[in-house]
Amino acid sequence: MSPQTPLQRSTIKEESQLVDFSSIIWYGANIDLLSSHLKERLTQLLKSYPEPNAATLRKMIASRQELTEEEVVVTNGPTAAFHLILRAFPKSRVLFPKPSLKALQHACELYDCPVSYLDYDQRVDDWNLEGVDICFLTTPNPPDGHILSHADMVRLFKKYPEVTFVVNQSYASFTTTNKLKPSHIKIYPNVMTIWSFSQPYGIPGLRIGYITATKVLAQALWRVYTPSVVTSEALEAAKYILIHPAQFTLPVRKWLRSAQELMTALRELDFFEVLPSDTTFFLLRVKKGCIESLCSYLHEKYGILVGRADLFVGVEKDCISITARSEEENKQLVEALRNWQSYIEEK
Amino acid sequence: MSPQTPLQRSTIKEESQLVDFSSIIWYGANIDLLSSHLKERLTQLLKSYPEPNAATLRKMIASRQELTEEEVVVTNGPTAAFHLILRAFPKSRVLFPKPSLKALQHACELYDCPVSYLDYDQRVDDWNLEGVDICFLTTPNPPDGHILSHADMVRLFKKYPEVTFVVNQSYASFTTTNKLKPSHIKIYPNVMTIWSFSQPYGIPGLRIGYITATKVLAQALWRVYTPSVVTSEALEAAKYILIHPAQFTLPVRKWLRSAQELMTALRELDFFEVLPSDTTFFLLRVKKGCIESLCSYLHEKYGILVGRADLFVGVEKDCISITARSEEENKQLVEALRNWQSYIEEK
Repeated sequence: MSPQTPLQRSTIKEESQLVDFSSIIWYGANIDLLSSHLKERLTQLLKSYPEPNAATLRKMIASRQELTEEEVVVTNGPTAAFHLILRAFPKSRVLFPKPSLKALQHACELYDCPVSYLDYDQRVDDWNLEGVDICFLTTPNPPDGHILSHADMVRLFKKYPEVTFVVNQSYASFTTTNKLKPSHIKIYPNVMTIWSFSQPYGIPGLRIGYITATKVLAQALWRVYTPSVVTSEALEAAKYILIHPAQFTLPVRKWLRSAQELMTALRELDFFEVLPSDTTFFLLRVKKGCIESLCSYLHEKYGILVGRADLFVGVEKDCISITARSEEENKQLVEALRNWQSYIEEK
Repeated sequence: MSPQTPLQRSTIKEESQLVDFSSIIWYGANIDLLSSHLKERLTQLLKSYPEPNAATLRKMIASRQELTEEEVVVTNGPTAAFHLILRAFPKSRVLFPKPSLKALQHACELYDCPVSYLDYDQRVDDWNLEGVDICFLTTPNPPDGHILSHADMVRLFKKYPEVTFVVNQSYASFTTTNKLKPSHIKIYPNVMTIWSFSQPYGIPGLRIGYITATKVLAQALWRVYTPSVVTSEALEAAKYILIHPAQFTLPVRKWLRSAQELMTALRELDFFEVLPSDTTFFLLRVKKGCIESLCSYLHEKYGILVGRADLFVGVEKDCISITARSEEENKQLVEALRNWQSYIEEK
């Protein structure tokens, strides 16, 4: 579920030296203690089969969220969750607002689901969901950062009780408002929620996340579930995170502030247009010059990665996606973009 | 793909203290150097998205096996491979010989594939595959250890060119004879092969394996592939294994010898019957007493795990599965079973 650029798919050693504004991930996660914990147990984790259906982890999530074990389904992350849900309900008539992840569109094609689209700019009261089976929502939404208000979501859930709403909450930690909880499925039985460990905890290498759904909906997911796909180590990491929440607190207010500061600084550059966002990631329109050469320039001259539009549906080709990082790194980005302006002006 | 008993699904700490005859895995794998390598890179592996389609690893496998990258599909192990193949070809008429893994039967049900069965005891020349779309073969076959001769397989491939043969080679290292190679798909285009890193290298916690198939068949798999399900660490481990084959040599002759010695010793016990096997795992019929109480006895008194019949299709309920281990541990098992005999004789 990462807006990775092809550039980013280089070797790990190279990646570690880059400043990555392309992954919509909490960049500041300190995973040293988690990493130590896993190192201590690594040999045993490699040697041991994982629990086929992640029973222990599901029990832990369920007890924290006041759900039952049956209402929690552990997957290899959000993309795998999309596939699992659509595999359980193939040929569903799907609707989702644009922009969205291409991975979701691909999953719909795979399971023969006709897709219709909406625009997040359209007022939710005007959305027409007649004849829709499944509506996918992501809030905050990558890569534009659109946030659906809690009230709007609830209005939709109630207005269309026959529609199943799949709310991807992978980026829920990247805002202070309007969150759903995993347990909202108890109030709104036509809702499933998707959660990721990658985004808020900075561990996309581990491939683990989960879905919450009522027992009836979850049973449909269990029927098509491939067992033993989540590794022993990913299960152990997720348990560790649940047991040590204080180590993984995301300073969201500070991050949001630095994102707003970055947007303000970028607005001063003539060749770029910042598209408005209330969260820590946003789209930047490149008004002059070629996106390809901009990306190469940033990569080669500054070791900076930015997100490319082609991993999304409904993003104009002249946009790049940016996830704010530390103040220092944000300044580097602004400086690099300013220098690119001069560079193409001179050409 | 493990014949795990419910007992085995306990915590990792407990598991590490048990002597496990239930997992059909090379028990003696020394993964110290692999483990050190992964520990060194762990933090970076956790932080980095895996390649969505495992391109680098596929290139490495392809170059070693004289295949092309397109002919190699990396999955979360053999069960995930079964699911992927049947997802690509739903409603196929499937045939497989018994005994077999229940996971395969479950995958067939999931993708609406009507299944017919054969018996490995039946001569291959008498097998009737008319009207079959996909035939699954595993050799050596869990849990009875049956080995199909190379000549028999080739006769089948040639006699039924319209049938797709999926040959699960997860246990191929557990025999010295009759192996297929990943590249046999070039000679027999109606064959796919499945390979596991868990069984021969002793790392079932990592969930990684691969399929080889002709470009035409592989394209059907890629169409239904869920990207990014294999972790960064599993990809790194697989690459390490390919680069350092000498660290992972399995002393198969020695292991086969010790398995035969174990079978010989068990044949002297009155309450048990060893079913013949030419590989390192076999079925043991329990002629007297209750399987449940035998398993509890072995677990509680000796910390020994054995495989239960209920993870397989076509295995009599009075059988347990055993994978031979070191001479010392094999002696412990014989001793424990002898003591159980005395224990129930006294009751």
